[in-house]
Amino acid sequence: MSKLRFKISMSLDGFVAGPSQSVDNPLGIGGGRLHEWAFQLAVFRALLGLEGGKVNESTPVVEESLANIGATLMGRNMFGGHPGPWDPGKPWNGWWGVNPPFHHPVFVLTHHAREPLELEGGTTFTFVTDGIAAALAQARHAAGGKDVSLGGGARAAQQLLATGLVDEMEINLVPTLLGSGERLFDGVGDDLHGLVLVRTVAAPKVTHLKFARR
Amino acid sequence: MSKLRFKISMSLDGFVAGPSQSVDNPLGIGGGRLHEWAFQLAVFRALLGLEGGKVNESTPVVEESLANIGATLMGRNMFGGHPGPWDPGKPWNGWWGVNPPFHHPVFVLTHHAREPLELEGGTTFTFVTDGIAAALAQARHAAGGKDVSLGGGARAAQQLLATGLVDEMEINLVPTLLGSGERLFDGVGDDLHGLVLVRTVAAPKVTHLKFARR
Repeated sequence: MSKLRFKISMSLDGFVAGPSQSVDNPLGIGGGRLHEWAFQLAVFRALLGLEGGKVNESTPVVEESLANIGATLMGRNMFGGHPGPWDPGKPWNGWWGVNPPFHHPVFVLTHHAREPLELEGGTTFTFVTDGIAAALAQARHAAGGKDVSLGGGARAAQQLLATGLVDEMEINLVPTLLGSGERLFDGVGDDLHGLVLVRTVAAPKVTHLKFARR
Repeated sequence: MSKLRFKISMSLDGFVAGPSQSVDNPLGIGGGRLHEWAFQLAVFRALLGLEGGKVNESTPVVEESLANIGATLMGRNMFGGHPGPWDPGKPWNGWWGVNPPFHHPVFVLTHHAREPLELEGGTTFTFVTDGIAAALAQARHAAGGKDVSLGGGARAAQQLLATGLVDEMEINLVPTLLGSGERLFDGVGDDLHGLVLVRTVAAPKVTHLKFARR
């Protein structure tokens, strides 16, 4: 059975992006600190076509998060660029350059229709305008029996967490404060829909908390 | 040098008490879930004069948190009872009964003067009305060279965290959502004042995150 697996980096005070997100500062003020643990890893740098990097306690966690994923689902805010309709004169093709780190079909939840976008390395972006259930169904179909990865942003994650459709959740808890920005669990309520903590990994600059159904 | 050591249990979404706190429901709706990990432990039950209980990965963490503490500092909201002036006809003596689990001097930060309260087992409550710096100074003096423990509530902790006076911080992260209530880090900003994560312990129903200065 194909699972929906959510992973995200969150500050100790619950933020997944800092304040004042913009094209120049996609993760908001201070938001880059949430991902320092990942950018230093060889396994993560390889996804971006970069050499070097470390191997540490986070390495098997990242390897596990990449295994058996057939498609990715994300919100418009994670794909980024600008709010509102797409600008045909200056197309926004995501944060990740010509060879994004996904290497599989990606479904972007948006209110604004757009033709699919095919980039290098097997990454295609499909823009879904008829809601999160439809986007999830398309991602599951494209995954061909493998799992679907959900990355963010916060609002897309909140919608799926609130419906109880998330089968696994990996919170990469970063021991820092952002003070303001996008809170992951805003509006989700007090129900994890059967997700319980099943594994904790202490690693440099991050604690990995894996939740799953028992 | 006497340290100020802060410890508190916090939900995954950052709350240290649920909504609608009252005399009948001191931790607010759902807030009791934050302390289940502790109430099942033999080392914690012994503090309350109760028998039985478990020994697990949390036990040495709790033992460490109790060691070398000479005094406790807390906010009025943690001492509890009711807001506003003390009621002389129906004195509120804290949540903990006639033999509270502290067994040392406790200093309660409040806007309302009151005579000291001496209970069984060596616990005395002193009510401090001239601000958090004065309360901390009195607690340090009473601790006689040992450390001062800071428990809560949220607002007292926020004041001390924002000033950078906290030397150690143990966050007992409980893998549950409360959805609303008292947020620990509200108003603290994005600065931990040199506190870094130095130790992670995975235990049943809780992850212990210890922060200290390097």
